[in-house]
Amino acid sequence: MTTEMTEAELDARHAEKMRKKKKARDKIVATKTIEKGLLIVHTGKGKGKSTAAFGMVFRALGHGLPVAIIQFVKGKWQTGERVALEKFGDQVSINTMGEGFTWETQDRQRDLAAARSAWERAKEIIVSRDYKLVLLDELNIVLRYGYLSADEIVAFLRDEKPDDVHVIVTGRNAPDSLIEAADLVTEMEMVKHPFRSGVKAQLGIEF
Amino acid sequence: MTTEMTEAELDARHAEKMRKKKKARDKIVATKTIEKGLLIVHTGKGKGKSTAAFGMVFRALGHGLPVAIIQFVKGKWQTGERVALEKFGDQVSINTMGEGFTWETQDRQRDLAAARSAWERAKEIIVSRDYKLVLLDELNIVLRYGYLSADEIVAFLRDEKPDDVHVIVTGRNAPDSLIEAADLVTEMEMVKHPFRSGVKAQLGIEF
Repeated sequence: MTTEMTEAELDARHAEKMRKKKKARDKIVATKTIEKGLLIVHTGKGKGKSTAAFGMVFRALGHGLPVAIIQFVKGKWQTGERVALEKFGDQVSINTMGEGFTWETQDRQRDLAAARSAWERAKEIIVSRDYKLVLLDELNIVLRYGYLSADEIVAFLRDEKPDDVHVIVTGRNAPDSLIEAADLVTEMEMVKHPFRSGVKAQLGIEF
Repeated sequence: MTTEMTEAELDARHAEKMRKKKKARDKIVATKTIEKGLLIVHTGKGKGKSTAAFGMVFRALGHGLPVAIIQFVKGKWQTGERVALEKFGDQVSINTMGEGFTWETQDRQRDLAAARSAWERAKEIIVSRDYKLVLLDELNIVLRYGYLSADEIVAFLRDEKPDDVHVIVTGRNAPDSLIEAADLVTEMEMVKHPFRSGVKAQLGIEF
């Protein structure tokens, strides 16, 4: 007697296992009935925080939904996303604050004013309900530098965001109060990074 | 005497700090000189693995680079991405394996054949060098089910992938050998998920 299963037995066992998985999954999905504009946070030291948010932006655009982006830290390396977003014309509103990375401007007063102005614009966009998805890209960085008050931002997102608007906040070091208020939080952890082995940032990958 | 700094002092301190940061950063960037097609892995139990990969796809497309996608697990919920990708016409090649999620097919032989066929297509695409970025979406799931040999896949990606082609592999439970071979690995950790509080999957967010 052998304990090896025949291919037919493996197939039958697989079909049974998959049937059970599908049943369990369908049952779970059926209990999820609340439609709600989510507050989503991508944080952590790893890569992919803004990139995953841009992926969600493109998915929403693909569904024909209007999307707004507020970039709290303007990068020099946003060409790829910008060109891709332009394919969607008026369906997407792009709002960029100030000039350059904060560590390239060295002008705190200008950064403070730019952060405040970007946040005022973000609030207008969110309460307007003209956009189904609003990306507050790198807002956490601005909070980390103390350019805006985390208390003020979290209170607004918790109490004044319309129920049918999704908001995504990205950036490392998300404040605890924001994580507490959020519906969905993903932490991107870096396991391995090519910069460590001397590989330079590359077109289409890093920027 | 007070220890409070004036705004002018805060600004001066900030400018100095930022000057130092910029100098340190420029120095690091200058040491990174190797151009290399990367093997990138997005794994972990959190959300955003495929979504961040799609974000990279759109960024590369925005830069005018040709991109290929091989979907190892066909989801029903890919409409958003597909419509957005179609904006780029022939610049992107989309290849989908088989039918439906594995837990909806219950047919192991069909899944085995589909996985093998998708992998053969992936190899052709990668060695052709016609595409600068190749996304092997949910390949880890197929490896997890044992539909393909992780040893075979890792050996190919390590030894036969052309140096100027970037490959992204997504899916939870990436095998250790793949993580070992990769240049860049990000683990997406779920901190909070709205499914837990009865919120259903929503258009433009979950699919």
